[in-house]
Amino acid sequence: MHSKKRAKIINDPIYGFIEVDKGIINDLINHKYFQRLRRISQLGLSYLVYPGAQHTRFQHAIGSLHLMNKALNQLENKGHKISKQEKEGVKIAILLHDIGHCPFSHALERTIVRDISHEQLTLIYMHKLNEEFNGKLSLAIKIFENKYERKFLNQLVSSQLDMDRLDYLKRDSFFTGVTEGNIGVDRIISMLDIKDDKLVIEEKGIYSIEKFIIARRLMYWQVYLHKTVLSAENMLIQILNRAKYIHENSKKIYLSPDLKRFFENSFSFDEFIKDDSILENFSRLDDYEIYACLKYWIKNEDFVLSNLSQKILDRDILKIKIQKTKFNKKIISKYRLNMMKKENINLNESKYFIFSDKVSNSLYSIHESNIKILFKDGNIKDLSYSSDQFNLKVLAKTINKYFLCYPSEYLVE
Amino acid sequence: MHSKKRAKIINDPIYGFIEVDKGIINDLINHKYFQRLRRISQLGLSYLVYPGAQHTRFQHAIGSLHLMNKALNQLENKGHKISKQEKEGVKIAILLHDIGHCPFSHALERTIVRDISHEQLTLIYMHKLNEEFNGKLSLAIKIFENKYERKFLNQLVSSQLDMDRLDYLKRDSFFTGVTEGNIGVDRIISMLDIKDDKLVIEEKGIYSIEKFIIARRLMYWQVYLHKTVLSAENMLIQILNRAKYIHENSKKIYLSPDLKRFFENSFSFDEFIKDDSILENFSRLDDYEIYACLKYWIKNEDFVLSNLSQKILDRDILKIKIQKTKFNKKIISKYRLNMMKKENINLNESKYFIFSDKVSNSLYSIHESNIKILFKDGNIKDLSYSSDQFNLKVLAKTINKYFLCYPSEYLVE
Amino acid sequence: MHSKKRAKIINDPIYGFIEVDKGIINDLINHKYFQRLRRISQLGLSYLVYPGAQHTRFQHAIGSLHLMNKALNQLENKGHKISKQEKEGVKIAILLHDIGHCPFSHALERTIVRDISHEQLTLIYMHKLNEEFNGKLSLAIKIFENKYERKFLNQLVSSQLDMDRLDYLKRDSFFTGVTEGNIGVDRIISMLDIKDDKLVIEEKGIYSIEKFIIARRLMYWQVYLHKTVLSAENMLIQILNRAKYIHENSKKIYLSPDLKRFFENSFSFDEFIKDDSILENFSRLDDYEIYACLKYWIKNEDFVLSNLSQKILDRDILKIKIQKTKFNKKIISKYRLNMMKKENINLNESKYFIFSDKVSNSLYSIHESNIKILFKDGNIKDLSYSSDQFNLKVLAKTINKYFLCYPSEYLVE
Amino acid sequence: MHSKKRAKIINDPIYGFIEVDKGIINDLINHKYFQRLRRISQLGLSYLVYPGAQHTRFQHAIGSLHLMNKALNQLENKGHKISKQEKEGVKIAILLHDIGHCPFSHALERTIVRDISHEQLTLIYMHKLNEEFNGKLSLAIKIFENKYERKFLNQLVSSQLDMDRLDYLKRDSFFTGVTEGNIGVDRIISMLDIKDDKLVIEEKGIYSIEKFIIARRLMYWQVYLHKTVLSAENMLIQILNRAKYIHENSKKIYLSPDLKRFFENSFSFDEFIKDDSILENFSRLDDYEIYACLKYWIKNEDFVLSNLSQKILDRDILKIKIQKTKFNKKIISKYRLNMMKKENINLNESKYFIFSDKVSNSLYSIHESNIKILFKDGNIKDLSYSSDQFNLKVLAKTINKYFLCYPSEYLVE
Repeated sequence: MHSKKRAKIINDPIYGFIEVDKGIINDLINHKYFQRLRRISQLGLSYLVYPGAQHTRFQHAIGSLHLMNKALNQLENKGHKISKQEKEGVKIAILLHDIGHCPFSHALERTIVRDISHEQLTLIYMHKLNEEFNGKLSLAIKIFENKYERKFLNQLVSSQLDMDRLDYLKRDSFFTGVTEGNIGVDRIISMLDIKDDKLVIEEKGIYSIEKFIIARRLMYWQVYLHKTVLSAENMLIQILNRAKYIHENSKKIYLSPDLKRFFENSFSFDEFIKDDSILENFSRLDDYEIYACLKYWIKNEDFVLSNLSQKILDRDILKIKIQKTKFNKKIISKYRLNMMKKENINLNESKYFIFSDKVSNSLYSIHESNIKILFKDGNIKDLSYSSDQFNLKVLAKTINKYFLCYPSEYLVE
Repeated sequence: MHSKKRAKIINDPIYGFIEVDKGIINDLINHKYFQRLRRISQLGLSYLVYPGAQHTRFQHAIGSLHLMNKALNQLENKGHKISKQEKEGVKIAILLHDIGHCPFSHALERTIVRDISHEQLTLIYMHKLNEEFNGKLSLAIKIFENKYERKFLNQLVSSQLDMDRLDYLKRDSFFTGVTEGNIGVDRIISMLDIKDDKLVIEEKGIYSIEKFIIARRLMYWQVYLHKTVLSAENMLIQILNRAKYIHENSKKIYLSPDLKRFFENSFSFDEFIKDDSILENFSRLDDYEIYACLKYWIKNEDFVLSNLSQKILDRDILKIKIQKTKFNKKIISKYRLNMMKKENINLNESKYFIFSDKVSNSLYSIHESNIKILFKDGNIKDLSYSSDQFNLKVLAKTINKYFLCYPSEYLVE
Repeated sequence: MHSKKRAKIINDPIYGFIEVDKGIINDLINHKYFQRLRRISQLGLSYLVYPGAQHTRFQHAIGSLHLMNKALNQLENKGHKISKQEKEGVKIAILLHDIGHCPFSHALERTIVRDISHEQLTLIYMHKLNEEFNGKLSLAIKIFENKYERKFLNQLVSSQLDMDRLDYLKRDSFFTGVTEGNIGVDRIISMLDIKDDKLVIEEKGIYSIEKFIIARRLMYWQVYLHKTVLSAENMLIQILNRAKYIHENSKKIYLSPDLKRFFENSFSFDEFIKDDSILENFSRLDDYEIYACLKYWIKNEDFVLSNLSQKILDRDILKIKIQKTKFNKKIISKYRLNMMKKENINLNESKYFIFSDKVSNSLYSIHESNIKILFKDGNIKDLSYSSDQFNLKVLAKTINKYFLCYPSEYLVE
Repeated sequence: MHSKKRAKIINDPIYGFIEVDKGIINDLINHKYFQRLRRISQLGLSYLVYPGAQHTRFQHAIGSLHLMNKALNQLENKGHKISKQEKEGVKIAILLHDIGHCPFSHALERTIVRDISHEQLTLIYMHKLNEEFNGKLSLAIKIFENKYERKFLNQLVSSQLDMDRLDYLKRDSFFTGVTEGNIGVDRIISMLDIKDDKLVIEEKGIYSIEKFIIARRLMYWQVYLHKTVLSAENMLIQILNRAKYIHENSKKIYLSPDLKRFFENSFSFDEFIKDDSILENFSRLDDYEIYACLKYWIKNEDFVLSNLSQKILDRDILKIKIQKTKFNKKIISKYRLNMMKKENINLNESKYFIFSDKVSNSLYSIHESNIKILFKDGNIKDLSYSSDQFNLKVLAKTINKYFLCYPSEYLVE
């Protein structure tokens, strides 16, 4: 008689077969909170530009788990002892690291749930699940919050070279078809080592890391901050802001019950923890929910709401300009005036169509200096000191860009 | 000064860069009817089993267009004259061939729109677009309906080896990660030729075609008719049938306005053509719409509706058994009785949970005999006569299987 | 301080990083006998048709070792106990399974070393290495010779679904670019199980196995028995036969010292074992050696030798016809007569240019019936009884084909 | 009746099917001079480190031709007129651009043929073939020598972004398995444009170019200048130098007739052109020739020659140290003295085993500044001025490194 250690195999277009452990890991995947991630797209509205980018947070979480398994194997192979409990803890932590995401991932963060970040929402989920699973997630939470003494475990979940990042760069590159963003995940993982309980990279892995940094930078500008995606996601934010405004002022708007609750309340972390029904409501929010509202809103009597909603549905994205300096306020005013006249709307309404803001790649926090290189002589140095020909400081600098969105028909020169 | 022939490039994870022609082709892609396909998943609920299978009808249509371009190049390269108009026509035909699909593609066909197939809906769309584009789609429609004299053009759109099939097999294999279903699209296209205005395959392509047939068969059983997917899709059909039943009897159910119209009417082809608003309603139906309803329905007072809706959302799929013979009616009755007692429901209600039906791969119509092989001596023979060692007739046979779905907790032995 | 379990990582274009165990496995790879495999092409002269097919027996052996590691993991994961010694033994057996190959792999088998097959040569190498490594290969030899009681270990090395076959099909498909021959190695390995110490396939793996059989068949006809390759490899055999004939009759021919020894002697298994110098000579024979001789032979005064040698070097391959029935002897005679007259050569000489023979895919022995399927109820059946729609007996039938080679300029109609 | 424009299809593991034009292109590929490239490995001895890197100059030339076809299509698509003659010319130029390579590509350049670079040898071949093909290569030669007025044609063959480079980076990355060196060939080609008869890159291609530069740099240090490869290739040079020395002093050495001629003569460009037999001799030199000599040399009485030859055959590579500064002469002397004593050899002999030299990536000449970016406003700027965050000057700097090779057993501390 034999008993299998794995509960099931999941087919992944990128890694092939992913084996899932029996027990808590499999149970968490089957939990409805985790299943919700099947309905949250990984890259928000990016699929309007890259049609292949329909992949979800679900796939990403499973993929990160897979890389965690590989990393743990590597580290054990190099002679490091990691206990069964620690392995389970860090696997749970990576599996659930994104469970708190709002619909369309980053796009609607802080729009629906104003005062709580997705990391905090993740923590709320973890605590609820810890209750349900009788404390089996305690170590995972400690690792996730970086309160566990062996710091490399947290670094595997959340650092410059964590399994989250390795998976999303590879996955986003794969599904967008931006093959240039592809990174050498296997090689990077094989270069991982531990020194003084911290994650380090073997000396001979320097080129791979440089390549990884460049690939990431390429992905920012080519995918994550692609101008059309930027415009579409800002349109969606404007739509939700307008919907909330209408709801607060006239109530003349359709809202799904779950969305309504969040429009009418701004819950705190503690309220989430105390009142189970809040998380139940939140757990029904997903990309599908938002789209269903959009379809009601195209028939709303409010010009702003109906017009922008229809535009998103038909992929009629606002034009967008990007430059390194702020846009001239006078020019923006001229655009708005022009539209106000033509559409007979007021200034406030025009601001939903014509708006400017700043975007920076620091959203994705580049602090390369954190990557530590382990030299053959046993010394450890920051990557920025190790790579003599490669100006990492320049690369790591936060870049700010300014954008201006506007409907093409109201452009004035 | 130069003027480009292509309007844009679309990134595809499978083929890389796809070039889209300026003019009508690009205009059709930008049309809101076509953009709707971004919200219709190619493989219905298959992503519940294959998480990567989130690809849409939009991607598939663009991919098929790409293969059509390749096929036309090949045929011209082999010395066949194809006019500019014919090329445009056949490209439009392949681009739009799936535009009439219902939410979740095949799953809900005939459930929402009872009396019209998705092919007819496609034709309705084509006629509407033909009006809007002043007759530019006339030849495309002729080709699509196989009323054009050069039959190979229709065969490129709809036959055993059409560009639709080549793309979907490759694409579904890619996104599910079932790499064994991968087919040699380039090789098959390079083997295409025309003889007496009909599509034929060069003799040396026989092995590739055999491989294609086997890959397709593997995809049927491993993906298209995967038992968990079969169960999930039948659950969804049951849910919609129950929703309609409730709506017809008590009205105590939430329905989106667009879905409501189709629940209350069964439109004919002619009605669709005459009353533009019907197609407008239909065009707002997509996967998102159905999911939004499911989330209302989980709170409906009807046990059947709320229970099944919650199950789909949480991926708690009914168990399913498959066998070659019909299931014994007595056993089914026993299952149902058991559930009726435990849940205090009536027989009719139990049938939504415990049901049996037949499934056959003939849904996907295998008539291999249609593939014609062109021998070096100029003769043409059916593939089934050309492949001496390969029992195609056996493969082509329609296979019927019977399935029984039931909630695992009501299983009696 | 940590000590690594792996000696090194080898980059493989197919599998990515392959980890090599420290100790005997790594030592064998570094041994000069094994390093020779870097100079033996996996597919003989196939690269004359598929330019990418330059891969070597070295890569194949490393790849097979990698799959063996995966298979052992799977089987252990399913609860089967395999001792450390058994694992090492079966890894050594697969690593060395092809070490006895002659230059150009199968092409020159039995031409250079007449009376000993490459499997016996492999055994000779194993025995020598066992001496050198103080008996560490004893279990590997037992497994290789199928004298070990746990039969599944031998089956992993040599059976219908051994790691050798899985790797070469995948590898040959990859490097030739015949993507249709690609097989789902990961899936097949994940379906392996053991029952009564024999290798079986889980029931749900049937489609993958069918696909594997079809892919293999496609590879035979499209690659392994490709007509141009067939002709080229037969030309090479003719060249070596002619060279030997000249050496035996006139000695007026250049021969490398190592080749000379084998032309002048036909050693037995026992002689190989007794006299170490024979294996030393053999170990210097590789593809490079043969090519170097060819370049001498193009300047040889013998018409047959110089002409055929030049043809191979310039990729001027003899024309070849293939048919299902024997070629008419009279026609062959006519061809030869024609050439004899034009080139002023005798009948015997013409036979080196114009010759006919039989080829069959049974060279690669298809006995599908050996694959055992493990059903969920615990029963085991032959694949041929398990696959109801797939006529395996037809596929498994040995196919004989006849070929006729001739220089195009001497073709008579 | 139809006549095909293409002569044949070549399977390529990277690009799939490559179509070869009828006529001169196909004839050149079939020519024995071009067929020789099948026996010249693209990456010299790199396969000793990367077993997959067995690909040849033949494959690379065909691949470059394929990319040229794509680039020409793109440029024509963007409205540029390129005549049929120009297209043929530039295709011939790229097809033959490497035809003059010595065995093991760069490794033995200037060792066998001292006074002529491989580019000049290529030109010699082109002139010979031009004669044979009655002047059909005249335009190709003009383009190759950059004497044709439309400069972008030469740039497609030889510049920072030529088809040669695009193919070799992609191909070397593919076959070594160093996936991080993979570049977005399709995207780069789609960004090509022409301005004032010069090749430029569209503005939005900047990130792809940056990525390309980084990938190239990674390939230099990880593959082209990999320390073990560096050591192996220098060993081979030492072996050939020693062989020549022995031949000049005692003649007690085996040499193949073709190699002998080049050891005894140092031909000029003009001599090659005048005396056809020289190119005939050269054309028989390939990797196989060198290996065959090595196998004789392992039995030579000269200690240096036999020892180093055996080491290469058995992949027993000299140890190598790399540092940024010159190695201390005293230390090198100490190493040598140590070896002289132990092996009873003289100083001169020891220098074949223990030697130091400089290596720089400038061998591969990085002058990024040459890449011109075409901005949307019509302006053209150097890439180094266009990429504000990316310190190209740092990247473009020539890096010198020093290496020291020595047999591990004679290391003194």
